Amino acid sequence: MKRLLVVTGGGDCPGLNAVIRAIVHRASQERDWEVLGSIQAFNGVLREPTEVVLLDNKKVAGIHFQGGTIIETTNKGGPFAWPVKDKNGNWTTVDRSDEMIRKLQIMHIDGVINIGGDGSQRISKRLYDKGLNIIGVPKTIDNDLSSTDSTFGFQTAVQVATEAVDKLVTTAASHNRVFVLEVMGREAGWIALNAAVAGGAEVCLIPEIPYNINKVKEALEKRFHRDRGFAVVVVAEGARPQGGDVVTQENDEVGYENKKLGGISGHLIQQLKESGFEHDMRQTILGHLQRGGVPTAYDRVLSSHFGVKAFEMALNGDWGKMVSYRHPDFISVPLEEAVAKPNLVTMDNPMVKTAQGLGISLGI
Amino acid sequence: MKRLLVVTGGGDCPGLNAVIRAIVHRASQERDWEVLGSIQAFNGVLREPTEVVLLDNKKVAGIHFQGGTIIETTNKGGPFAWPVKDKNGNWTTVDRSDEMIRKLQIMHIDGVINIGGDGSQRISKRLYDKGLNIIGVPKTIDNDLSSTDSTFGFQTAVQVATEAVDKLVTTAASHNRVFVLEVMGREAGWIALNAAVAGGAEVCLIPEIPYNINKVKEALEKRFHRDRGFAVVVVAEGARPQGGDVVTQENDEVGYENKKLGGISGHLIQQLKESGFEHDMRQTILGHLQRGGVPTAYDRVLSSHFGVKAFEMALNGDWGKMVSYRHPDFISVPLEEAVAKPNLVTMDNPMVKTAQGLGISLGI
Amino acid sequence: MKRLLVVTGGGDCPGLNAVIRAIVHRASQERDWEVLGSIQAFNGVLREPTEVVLLDNKKVAGIHFQGGTIIETTNKGGPFAWPVKDKNGNWTTVDRSDEMIRKLQIMHIDGVINIGGDGSQRISKRLYDKGLNIIGVPKTIDNDLSSTDSTFGFQTAVQVATEAVDKLVTTAASHNRVFVLEVMGREAGWIALNAAVAGGAEVCLIPEIPYNINKVKEALEKRFHRDRGFAVVVVAEGARPQGGDVVTQENDEVGYENKKLGGISGHLIQQLKESGFEHDMRQTILGHLQRGGVPTAYDRVLSSHFGVKAFEMALNGDWGKMVSYRHPDFISVPLEEAVAKPNLVTMDNPMVKTAQGLGISLGI
Amino acid sequence: MKRLLVVTGGGDCPGLNAVIRAIVHRASQERDWEVLGSIQAFNGVLREPTEVVLLDNKKVAGIHFQGGTIIETTNKGGPFAWPVKDKNGNWTTVDRSDEMIRKLQIMHIDGVINIGGDGSQRISKRLYDKGLNIIGVPKTIDNDLSSTDSTFGFQTAVQVATEAVDKLVTTAASHNRVFVLEVMGREAGWIALNAAVAGGAEVCLIPEIPYNINKVKEALEKRFHRDRGFAVVVVAEGARPQGGDVVTQENDEVGYENKKLGGISGHLIQQLKESGFEHDMRQTILGHLQRGGVPTAYDRVLSSHFGVKAFEMALNGDWGKMVSYRHPDFISVPLEEAVAKPNLVTMDNPMVKTAQGLGISLGI
Repeated sequence: MKRLLVVTGGGDCPGLNAVIRAIVHRASQERDWEVLGSIQAFNGVLREPTEVVLLDNKKVAGIHFQGGTIIETTNKGGPFAWPVKDKNGNWTTVDRSDEMIRKLQIMHIDGVINIGGDGSQRISKRLYDKGLNIIGVPKTIDNDLSSTDSTFGFQTAVQVATEAVDKLVTTAASHNRVFVLEVMGREAGWIALNAAVAGGAEVCLIPEIPYNINKVKEALEKRFHRDRGFAVVVVAEGARPQGGDVVTQENDEVGYENKKLGGISGHLIQQLKESGFEHDMRQTILGHLQRGGVPTAYDRVLSSHFGVKAFEMALNGDWGKMVSYRHPDFISVPLEEAVAKPNLVTMDNPMVKTAQGLGISLGI
Repeated sequence: MKRLLVVTGGGDCPGLNAVIRAIVHRASQERDWEVLGSIQAFNGVLREPTEVVLLDNKKVAGIHFQGGTIIETTNKGGPFAWPVKDKNGNWTTVDRSDEMIRKLQIMHIDGVINIGGDGSQRISKRLYDKGLNIIGVPKTIDNDLSSTDSTFGFQTAVQVATEAVDKLVTTAASHNRVFVLEVMGREAGWIALNAAVAGGAEVCLIPEIPYNINKVKEALEKRFHRDRGFAVVVVAEGARPQGGDVVTQENDEVGYENKKLGGISGHLIQQLKESGFEHDMRQTILGHLQRGGVPTAYDRVLSSHFGVKAFEMALNGDWGKMVSYRHPDFISVPLEEAVAKPNLVTMDNPMVKTAQGLGISLGI
Repeated sequence: MKRLLVVTGGGDCPGLNAVIRAIVHRASQERDWEVLGSIQAFNGVLREPTEVVLLDNKKVAGIHFQGGTIIETTNKGGPFAWPVKDKNGNWTTVDRSDEMIRKLQIMHIDGVINIGGDGSQRISKRLYDKGLNIIGVPKTIDNDLSSTDSTFGFQTAVQVATEAVDKLVTTAASHNRVFVLEVMGREAGWIALNAAVAGGAEVCLIPEIPYNINKVKEALEKRFHRDRGFAVVVVAEGARPQGGDVVTQENDEVGYENKKLGGISGHLIQQLKESGFEHDMRQTILGHLQRGGVPTAYDRVLSSHFGVKAFEMALNGDWGKMVSYRHPDFISVPLEEAVAKPNLVTMDNPMVKTAQGLGISLGI
Repeated sequence: MKRLLVVTGGGDCPGLNAVIRAIVHRASQERDWEVLGSIQAFNGVLREPTEVVLLDNKKVAGIHFQGGTIIETTNKGGPFAWPVKDKNGNWTTVDRSDEMIRKLQIMHIDGVINIGGDGSQRISKRLYDKGLNIIGVPKTIDNDLSSTDSTFGFQTAVQVATEAVDKLVTTAASHNRVFVLEVMGREAGWIALNAAVAGGAEVCLIPEIPYNINKVKEALEKRFHRDRGFAVVVVAEGARPQGGDVVTQENDEVGYENKKLGGISGHLIQQLKESGFEHDMRQTILGHLQRGGVPTAYDRVLSSHFGVKAFEMALNGDWGKMVSYRHPDFISVPLEEAVAKPNLVTMDNPMVKTAQGLGISLGI
């Protein structure tokens, strides 16, 4: 009997459960494999008593339809940075990676599939270098990995953000207002750009292209005549003015305090007011609504591909690699390449050209 | 030829367009009626040149599917409070109601249908007392009118809020977090209560029932064991702690500045932290997403009833009244009664009993 | 310890699970009550070995979000008509009601909540007359009960049917076609009427108002000019031509063979062709899509009310009654009244007036 | 001033309007271009009087949100096969292509963008060979073109079909039934495969892989134990049994008569009954619901890319080509290549592997 351990780490993403289900379904076709799941990434293994559960077909029935992850996830702890109090009572961290690898041996785990973002895959790489059989499945709702054509969760986030634009358009038009919608994307503007194009926004501001507030104002003013007109601005949380710093982010670690600052969307409204823009403006921060809920069909299919491929890599002993989608194939790439280069928006990307082609101002 | 003028005032609400379409469709069955619309409530009539448009079947084709109002709406101006600058350059208001009534006479308007909230219906009453043929159609997304069993837009707002709870549940469960979702409702907690019951929230805080922060904390702590567990709190924007004032509101007039304060949801998280609640908490303010978008079938049907009934009241000369739904009938009630008594949540309401029956804490 | 048995019978309906969850949640607040569920209506009790499961808060977690019923349902068997083979090998039925009541006593069941349609409630009445403590919860997706203002599942079915109209409108308009959409409703036309009003159909045919094919043709031809124009017809499965019989029904018992006949929608298209109507026509039978899927917020709330009320009736020993919604209250009515009178569409119902007010032809 | 004519031909597809909008928005950025649309493909040009409309930013406002095509479409007529009656009164067709090209010259049309399927692009090629400046935009809801990575409308159809599976799963499970869902795909099984994977079906039958009825029966029987169990079968309309012919198709030309035959889904149920499969089975034919309605964000983005690229090809005089998506770029390919090779499912495609990896039976 061979045992595979599945873990999910970092922020949750629609489609995680579909990956888990695909791994379990595929494994059930092999006589001698069973799949376990560690609760809250590797923390389930590290705890006493351990929190590791059996994942069989019955346990994963219907979960592809659910957002989130049934084996939970976390940004805290992990094998290389387990939190402990030092003698002065202050929090510090210790490396428990060797201990964890021993624990996995004792549990007769033959391999691990680690579904997670770049932080998680760096952990995968370090564990692999220590001799652990491990395979990565990329997870980034921002679609900001250059080592795969696309990642699950992204299209669902784009769909949620687009539906938000659709909703704001009708109320904006009825009230002759400007709505500023803040979406996810600290480093990469893909969600913002896609939602702006799909929803028909007038302005889209992204981290990769610092904006000129005067250009934003100009684009908005063109939309108004007397007090008639309206506009929707889609802004990525990591957008920033030219010459300025990132104003604020919806940071998982910092949490709600940021909301008090109003995010970049609040800052933008403030800037527009100060620059003399006189029309009504309103702000909406989509936040975690983009992470939750039923994954789109696209993401469920992509997740299923990733899960089946990951199991087959395990079956073939293709350790130390990450699943990748290179249209139309699913391949494996070395873990070190996997997180090497982020996928950021560049000016010559078709998304930029198409956004500009539609008349969407990028604030430049 | 008889001419009917339609206006929409106050915040927009899913279903406004379906009311307009129903009035126009019904009117088109009478040989000698035509329908006009004034842009931005009565302001379209008061402007020079006037902004009044013909509404025929072609113009309203397909609009029942759209949120918002094709004749726009506003909270500013109106016949009794038209903004002007005094000699010192300060903004003040003047009464232009007599002038407006004369303008309507010159335009050969035989009657007006005013679709709007209690503010709008007070204007209806004052105009009716001055001799204008006017009929009110109630509009309140909060469903807080006692003079009608239900109002359009409310079910759509509840649906949007419930879908938000659905989305937050999966991410909350995956991260063992508490999510605080702030929904509309400054005076009345109907949207919050319905979304909490429909979505399966653990706590629901509403304006009518000031909450005890210790009870809230207690209810949440019951949901956690070690660091496992999660919860969703639905809070109406007008909720407040026992003995406390309304902390802040998402006020149409005040706008984005409030967001900086974090709303009641931000305040609640602050209170919970201060009271020693240690689990991760996140905040989502739904805001205008509740107003926008495609109305549910329920609201499109209700709006159609209101529109057809309103036109038939005009046809019968039943002026000075407001449309009302008394299951299963659509009736007319005097304008003075229409806005007399708000419909607030009381402790013996079935919604309260059912919420408590499901185990939802109301913070008391 | 008191034991309550819950059963669901007849066709499934969005909201069944929310009723079950509400009963279980409410019961968990009483120290000495536990809730069991019989699989496939009463058949779970009648089988050897019995199929009866414990329903606790953990078991019902999240099920309000799911369509269908976790304790399954059936149209076959039951205490008064259990299928057996006679000595000649032919199927016949026997009355096992006394045996079942004894089995319930042996299982220490103190009362039963039977969630089901009129067939199920007739069984409730007969069992009550035999001394069983039983409470009914009405279930009819067609909303055709006069003993309650509304039943769960109906609004979800209307929403699904309306979204189908929305989808057909755009393809109809692009191709200048007539689409005939067949929806549920064998005796009552409520779903058809609501979807026609909400979706903006041109024609709506229902069982209560036999249609004149010439009037239907006339209404459709008005919509075309040269080869331009389009229309959507919503037809209830039980609709029928004047002087004609019910052509066919999507009958749960008869099943797929009916589909070969094309249903009433196929018959209508045939009639229109024969009467010389020359434009392109297409047919869509919605069928079971109306039953499935996530219940709307409205239905989840209504189901929760029903469940909480049903348990409280059990708590108070209010047996032999059925839950009923009389706006804004939830009350109990005797089982014999509960199924006495169907709620059918009459010509003076506001739905008929509003449909006609919008210009929808009822084929008369 | 340069004039571009846009036409849409063949079956409608979610995203057509977004292509049109993108062309018009992009053209409005050039001082000297204007865009016209011909109603019902080229028929608008061929008619007397012509039906050609100006398409400007105002006309296309908000249409990206709508399914269908605002300039309508048709499968009939066209420049090479215009229907006329011969002297005996029978319908025949004539070639009006030269006349049409002259008409376009008289109207000062400098180029044409033809959005349509392979039939339409063959017309494009023939017109281009006759000297017309023409650019093709591929349209196939089945995603069956090898000359582009993906086509708009497909993801929306997959989403609609997946949501149908989601709905049928809950009612299937509640009633222990088998549901057979028939989706689009006469030659290619992509929609069926994607919906089966995304929705979690048990069986998926597609045109490219003729099925063995015994294998289908076997796969279904595995899902049942006593009378418990359920299953969903997704079948493409063009699926067929091994050794058999295509049973029937939902053919645009043949229309509703096919429905009487029950489609391949009806045939499959018949076969299963005859082979002794004893569980309840139900049939749903999705039909035109897959074409209609609001396009997903993915399709709106893809359509916008196609529209902007098509206009830029016109701007650069890149005639005789078709827009193509080669991830991540949008390129142009010669029209003759464009329709040369269909994109059909092969056994080594990742979709097949992943479907089988999930345990979905392909009936082989």
